[in-house]
Amino acid sequence: MPEKLSLGDSNLLWAYALIDGLASRGVTQAVISPGSRSTPLVIACDHHPAIQIRVQVDERCAAFFALGLAKQSQQPVILIATSGSAPAHWFPAVIEANHSTIPLILLTADRPPELHGWGANQTTDQQRLFGSHLRAFYDPGPAENETLPRDQLHKLGREIATQAMQPHPGPIQVNMPFREPLLPSSNICLPESATAQRNTAAPATPDATLIEAIIRQIAGKPGIILCGASDLGATFAQAVGRLAESLDCPILADPLSNMRNGGHDKRRVIAHYDAFLEPAAEAIRPHWVLRFGALPVSKALLQYLEKTQAPQLICDPYQQWPSLPPHGKLSIATDPILLCEAIIAKQPTPAPKAWCAAFGRLEQRAATIMTPETVEDHPFEGEIVDTLLDCLPDRSLLFSGNSMPIRQLDSWSGVRDKQIQIAANRGVSGIDGTISTFLGMAQGDYSVAVALMGDLTFYHDLNGLLAAAGEDLVIVLINNNGGGIFGYLPQSSLNSYEHYWNTATDLNFQHAATLYGLGYKQVTQQSTFRATLEQSIASGGPQLIEVMIDRDYSIERHRHYRAAVAQQLTK
Amino acid sequence: MPEKLSLGDSNLLWAYALIDGLASRGVTQAVISPGSRSTPLVIACDHHPAIQIRVQVDERCAAFFALGLAKQSQQPVILIATSGSAPAHWFPAVIEANHSTIPLILLTADRPPELHGWGANQTTDQQRLFGSHLRAFYDPGPAENETLPRDQLHKLGREIATQAMQPHPGPIQVNMPFREPLLPSSNICLPESATAQRNTAAPATPDATLIEAIIRQIAGKPGIILCGASDLGATFAQAVGRLAESLDCPILADPLSNMRNGGHDKRRVIAHYDAFLEPAAEAIRPHWVLRFGALPVSKALLQYLEKTQAPQLICDPYQQWPSLPPHGKLSIATDPILLCEAIIAKQPTPAPKAWCAAFGRLEQRAATIMTPETVEDHPFEGEIVDTLLDCLPDRSLLFSGNSMPIRQLDSWSGVRDKQIQIAANRGVSGIDGTISTFLGMAQGDYSVAVALMGDLTFYHDLNGLLAAAGEDLVIVLINNNGGGIFGYLPQSSLNSYEHYWNTATDLNFQHAATLYGLGYKQVTQQSTFRATLEQSIASGGPQLIEVMIDRDYSIERHRHYRAAVAQQLTK
Repeated sequence: MPEKLSLGDSNLLWAYALIDGLASRGVTQAVISPGSRSTPLVIACDHHPAIQIRVQVDERCAAFFALGLAKQSQQPVILIATSGSAPAHWFPAVIEANHSTIPLILLTADRPPELHGWGANQTTDQQRLFGSHLRAFYDPGPAENETLPRDQLHKLGREIATQAMQPHPGPIQVNMPFREPLLPSSNICLPESATAQRNTAAPATPDATLIEAIIRQIAGKPGIILCGASDLGATFAQAVGRLAESLDCPILADPLSNMRNGGHDKRRVIAHYDAFLEPAAEAIRPHWVLRFGALPVSKALLQYLEKTQAPQLICDPYQQWPSLPPHGKLSIATDPILLCEAIIAKQPTPAPKAWCAAFGRLEQRAATIMTPETVEDHPFEGEIVDTLLDCLPDRSLLFSGNSMPIRQLDSWSGVRDKQIQIAANRGVSGIDGTISTFLGMAQGDYSVAVALMGDLTFYHDLNGLLAAAGEDLVIVLINNNGGGIFGYLPQSSLNSYEHYWNTATDLNFQHAATLYGLGYKQVTQQSTFRATLEQSIASGGPQLIEVMIDRDYSIERHRHYRAAVAQQLTK
Repeated sequence: MPEKLSLGDSNLLWAYALIDGLASRGVTQAVISPGSRSTPLVIACDHHPAIQIRVQVDERCAAFFALGLAKQSQQPVILIATSGSAPAHWFPAVIEANHSTIPLILLTADRPPELHGWGANQTTDQQRLFGSHLRAFYDPGPAENETLPRDQLHKLGREIATQAMQPHPGPIQVNMPFREPLLPSSNICLPESATAQRNTAAPATPDATLIEAIIRQIAGKPGIILCGASDLGATFAQAVGRLAESLDCPILADPLSNMRNGGHDKRRVIAHYDAFLEPAAEAIRPHWVLRFGALPVSKALLQYLEKTQAPQLICDPYQQWPSLPPHGKLSIATDPILLCEAIIAKQPTPAPKAWCAAFGRLEQRAATIMTPETVEDHPFEGEIVDTLLDCLPDRSLLFSGNSMPIRQLDSWSGVRDKQIQIAANRGVSGIDGTISTFLGMAQGDYSVAVALMGDLTFYHDLNGLLAAAGEDLVIVLINNNGGGIFGYLPQSSLNSYEHYWNTATDLNFQHAATLYGLGYKQVTQQSTFRATLEQSIASGGPQLIEVMIDRDYSIERHRHYRAAVAQQLTK
């Protein structure tokens, strides 16, 4: 017998079935933006005991914030927006989530089918919003008044929570049309929430034939373990450390690999390759490259791989990439930790003794040059990065903006025993959504949360600062008034460079701090940065440190360092 | 014989062929955001004598700004962004452009095919970005070194400029992959630019059988001409005025129809229907409705159409809507002005005399009540709108935000002889991109440009203010601290209303004005608004007037007015 329900009650039960399905597989966070059509979904989340709701008015910020939450928690996060253009603001974050394999559950409230196709208000095609950037798309239609379809929707919720995580984590959209009225009656009784069970599918043991093929390729030969961006944590760092020991080869560790900092074995971790690989390439030619995580940030490293043409074995646990990069030889669809362990278990012949030692010597030299005596007391990004990492306590988060800051972290951050999680949006490496992603990640359990970003990046996501109120965090804004990265590119030679590439905003960001209630300090001398940072961390609440950069001075210092490394290496 | 060209030169010639093709069909404006991969496109625009470039760092603002430019000029505008997530920020504006039939040429710089599919930096699928919201999509591939394909690309440029305008104006994407190097040699010689010819396809004369069918439906019977949002200008307003005279029927004119203000015959224009249609519906039942433009803003009018069930004839010149609204009887794919003229030429029997007079009386009564004596000196939106329209000189632009301001304009703006262009984004009626669209439109030749918007709308597009520097314009910010529209909806009864629906930002917008260099004045009393507005208009430069609204007072005044109209009508 079908239940007798008002349409408003039916809408809420429908929304609740989906939300409870998701929650029953461990989903606990929802980020919503205001709207009318999304009302049943918001009420369902509000009434669910396991769901924590956060509100963000600007859907673009909401999506990047959710991305940060999911990146930090490594669990799917729900996004809810109303009908019309609202969910389209999620798109940049959806693309980033697709490429950086972050699970997002995109719930788009829609108008019902009968309102489509004739120009009704806020009505558009929401079924083809995110193109090829979704893992899956569902549209269960308007609320059904019977138990069976509602149970099916609950089941869909459970399945989606799993599908967002495996085999290839990423965004999933569920389009949810609702008919009016959107509010339930005041006495509606919601079903008891289901018990939450997290998905913990055990990864498959790597295939023995595959491991043998890998061993044949790498054992006894000089090679490189390359660790790009990944969120695999300390267990992975330890496993890679043991693998490098077993093969006696260097680990070229991208700053986002989180191999540079922490308590694991870092004897073979190389952090200054960006400086020495170009001048030293001839002397250190690898016979193989085993890559974990994403492509590295360093252009010098990519050019080195291109130049030395060593065959690359790429661990791609999610089979994320349909094809291989140039000189890519094998895609390994295996859990990275199990892969390390399986290779170690075979006790492969290590590389010749001199191989890893050569990298060690280059690393040491580059690190010594790293901190030359400061000629002038201008802030310089290399020293900013170094001081920043020095000051951060154990269990910190350092979120990096793209463009220059991530490259400066790559060049100038060394190796440290503290556990500092370094993160960035490297799926498509945009300058967008940086403040919001940082704020989302900063919800995690860190001793201190700091972000480092340039002024265009900061401006691009200024609206994100609305969510900073009441949070303990520090944003270090590297202000070189424009897209300083182009100063290192050929575009800087064009007459229209300043206007079309550098695109300075000329904003005084102290006013942005005032608008959003952030504490503000300006740094104009390198020597004052440390004390300023320590004060900002100690004072609590949201803090902005604006570091004023002289662009020409920075480029000069950067060139000087490169030249010094090259000269030392050819001595 | 193929020319001998460097890859950099080839890239620029390739980009220039497309840009010159577009320019040769009258395209003159480009809005760009900074990036590296888009370099050949930017240089091509920079070198083209007919193209004016504007720079916007935030691609979301860039797209809405371009939308405003195109909306105002009624010509296609070029958008250029670099590869990765950058063009995804255009999406909300693309959806709006789709539904409000605004021509945009979306040029997305891409990485070449060989960099796709294996995780290369800033590389993603840009070929399926905008789903069903495009009129067309092209990808001519990387630069070809021969004349023939380049000529074909020039031809494509010409065709696209036309296709963006007819038969159904809207957005078109051209994905442009470029291989490095992206810069041309310094001595490159560009071909002479082609002569610009605008597309001026004459609209087809309406079919005689169709006109006869329409006449049969409407002649001699009481009916309504309904004018929704359209950008058809004074000639259309005159034609509709004559049609209404010939049929002796009222014109229910949405504020965005631009029928309420101007020098045309306004004797039959009804502007206060939102107030009287509900109480008076029984007394004035139409036998037909002839609609021009989009669906109207007024909910009372939509409910009246629903209730009276008169068959609707809908002029849809672009065949924009695949289906008809409830009670839709005929979709007329004809030029609106020619349609008016064709009906007039048939000298149809007018409606019974009393019909139009009844609307006239209701209009007059509602207009008298409109300005009741102010009890308290709080700012009230009805009086803000009235004063604003009073103060604006001839040939002004008034851009309205969505949500409450457009509804308040609908309720409280009367009929005036001055030419005031009232515009808004009603394609999908979002609160997004309002500042940027306004700034884009304000580039047109207006005596004064003013925008009216709420605080959530203002916050949502705060980044757009970066483009306000040096412009003469006034933004009237109606600040009721949150989504005041929900105060009129059932959601206001929920416990979580303030938190999840009203979503106040609590921002002090004076700091936003300081950040972006706008003059700032706050209005806390209705009596000071006129002088403040006049001062702001007179002082030049970008100006912000923040009007502080007491939400409860406004809702009370609004209810009071409705009750007074209803009471007067039943006397």
